[in-house]
Amino acid sequence: MSGCGAEKGLMSIDEALELIRTQPKALKTEVLALAQGLNRYLATAIYSEVNLPSFSQSAVDGYAIKRSLTQLQDVCFEVIGEIKAGSELDYQLADGQAIRIFTGGKIPEGTTHVARQEIVQVESDKIRLLEQIKPHADIRFTGEEVQQGQQLADVGQSINIGALAALSMAGVQRIEVFQQPKVAVVITGDEVAESPEDLQAGKVFDANGPLLKAWFKDYGIDVEILHIVDEAAQVTACFELLKYTYDVIITTGGVSVGDYDFVRPCAFETGFEQVFWKVKQKPGKPLFFAAYQSPEQDHHCYLLGLPGNPAAVYVSMQIYGKVLLDALQNQRQAVQWFSAILTHELKSDARERFLRMHAYFEQGQLKLQSLAKQQSHMLSNLMQANCLVRIPANIPLNAGQEVSGIFINN
Amino acid sequence: MSGCGAEKGLMSIDEALELIRTQPKALKTEVLALAQGLNRYLATAIYSEVNLPSFSQSAVDGYAIKRSLTQLQDVCFEVIGEIKAGSELDYQLADGQAIRIFTGGKIPEGTTHVARQEIVQVESDKIRLLEQIKPHADIRFTGEEVQQGQQLADVGQSINIGALAALSMAGVQRIEVFQQPKVAVVITGDEVAESPEDLQAGKVFDANGPLLKAWFKDYGIDVEILHIVDEAAQVTACFELLKYTYDVIITTGGVSVGDYDFVRPCAFETGFEQVFWKVKQKPGKPLFFAAYQSPEQDHHCYLLGLPGNPAAVYVSMQIYGKVLLDALQNQRQAVQWFSAILTHELKSDARERFLRMHAYFEQGQLKLQSLAKQQSHMLSNLMQANCLVRIPANIPLNAGQEVSGIFINN
Repeated sequence: MSGCGAEKGLMSIDEALELIRTQPKALKTEVLALAQGLNRYLATAIYSEVNLPSFSQSAVDGYAIKRSLTQLQDVCFEVIGEIKAGSELDYQLADGQAIRIFTGGKIPEGTTHVARQEIVQVESDKIRLLEQIKPHADIRFTGEEVQQGQQLADVGQSINIGALAALSMAGVQRIEVFQQPKVAVVITGDEVAESPEDLQAGKVFDANGPLLKAWFKDYGIDVEILHIVDEAAQVTACFELLKYTYDVIITTGGVSVGDYDFVRPCAFETGFEQVFWKVKQKPGKPLFFAAYQSPEQDHHCYLLGLPGNPAAVYVSMQIYGKVLLDALQNQRQAVQWFSAILTHELKSDARERFLRMHAYFEQGQLKLQSLAKQQSHMLSNLMQANCLVRIPANIPLNAGQEVSGIFINN
Repeated sequence: MSGCGAEKGLMSIDEALELIRTQPKALKTEVLALAQGLNRYLATAIYSEVNLPSFSQSAVDGYAIKRSLTQLQDVCFEVIGEIKAGSELDYQLADGQAIRIFTGGKIPEGTTHVARQEIVQVESDKIRLLEQIKPHADIRFTGEEVQQGQQLADVGQSINIGALAALSMAGVQRIEVFQQPKVAVVITGDEVAESPEDLQAGKVFDANGPLLKAWFKDYGIDVEILHIVDEAAQVTACFELLKYTYDVIITTGGVSVGDYDFVRPCAFETGFEQVFWKVKQKPGKPLFFAAYQSPEQDHHCYLLGLPGNPAAVYVSMQIYGKVLLDALQNQRQAVQWFSAILTHELKSDARERFLRMHAYFEQGQLKLQSLAKQQSHMLSNLMQANCLVRIPANIPLNAGQEVSGIFINN
């Protein structure tokens, strides 16, 4: 579409990502009940206060027995009781005695073996072992998974479902995590249609508001979407109001060099300092990133100015937005790009591109198929896309070449 | 740990998945505001009511011009007005006239070309073109992305962020989706510790409750977690109460063949019919799936009985739980396994296994590194794991062999 290529002096994608990943000051931490910490990042390492298992227990349904000799096959034992998982009963086994025990049941004192029920013949109040078994088989020993005092999780650990379950099992009830940023989304421009009739008047339906609302909901943050018209006074007043109470302002539109592109000048007027502007990428070239620091230096507000085109908004949030939100929570891991194989050739372009593609696995390889309708005002191919792929600038690519990307099928 | 291998007659993982994917009756549909439909599945296809773009518009900041001759370089045009994105002004260009236009601005009647501002020299109320340009360059034409009446999305489409944005852009405000299932989670057993002191009494901290609560929260469903003791009367009363009002009951524990494994008999007593029991897998062999149908046949309740070991709960939910919830929303796509390459050998086991592994990309290939502590009562390696990998039964595997799996790093 647009014939415009790469201007001189544009920043590379990697440089821009590095600034967003490293520059923001992390927010304060807070202590939450573990269940409330889902999808947050740990601010402190966690060391186990208990052994796991915290007592030796049976790994099967069967019998705990005591036998000082090694020969066990065809030997009979007297059954003196029963231990369920969670049972508080304390038994002491004597030689030749057995106890019915269930998976998770606490191994009684004196136990030398556990015999699973499949190899046991029950004879009234006695049992007979049908096979020879090894000592300590089918016993889960105290601390065999985790020793008391051992590190369970490190700073920065994402509290995903698995991590949350593992911490629950170690009895962790509260965790210290970084606060989530307070985010305001500002949609600029006069072109948003409220009804089909508005389309006749040159307006378009708003994709950016719903897109950003959904993106943040998925990330776990509720945001308010503000719409403001393209007037410098309004944009300035908006930034002035938001900069004190929000950690992040996301804007869409108004960051190019058009006569109505008020975001940058209004940001500067309200005390934001530019970190970067313009990235050598497609879509999203006019991407703008700036920071405001309060006079007392105890509050920062970061402004990520996205272009107005919906594909640029989508790509920018998936690539840069996530890195910014994570950095504010002190999670500063670089983007983990997949590496995958193109199944077709691609023409060269003056800017590095993020293309929406369909990725699929074949014999251990991730293969990529590009989709039609990649222009920055088009979104319909997101119905089929499951990844964004980085296509380097200024070289034509052939089928079989390796490129990097991220999955987007959330 | 457990010496128990594969019994005769166990169902394969693929057979069990196929039953869960195909047997459940889909729930009713409901109409939601688009924004409320995030992560739901479409019940009807959607056809566009508008063209996209809905009017021809400028792709750049520049000038719309009218010129009947092909020679344009160094030609001057009189500027007669200005069109912003969203502007309602209607202009009619005459030969030799130009209009200042911004990205997204509606192309005026009579336009033959759009000249981006970088190739235009402004001379008071006139402009001069510095380069030759092609007709129709930098114009986005009506309907070039989507034609009115064209299908935007098909039945079963997941309303992810991208799909939601694309539908917003086409002015779609309400969508018909399948209802989400009402889910009850029942944790059976007496072994749950409330405090560190309880550990001395043979109890363990509850991982399954928090795990399932978090799993469903991530899926988008709020669930209540019920704890009941291992007594037949209680389990029966619980199922009797839940079966009428819930679409899904998830239980943990009590599905093996121990003397306290009440889930199956109590399910049968309350009218559930077994779909399958026992899968040739590790962890999770005693997995139980049953269905209740109300006498009027207008309500079904599906019971997924998970083993009590937390790793079995985790794996079963990631593999089978998601398929069940999706099937109830008529999303019956088979699991999309990745294919990846082992970086080391693995011993043989009598059952197919799901191993927690770390997957990483290298030159277009997905490589797999297994983690220690895979036993079914252990979860701590979920801090490092980002995938579950299927390891076939009864054959040792070598480095370089291809296996399948799913990502779990949500």
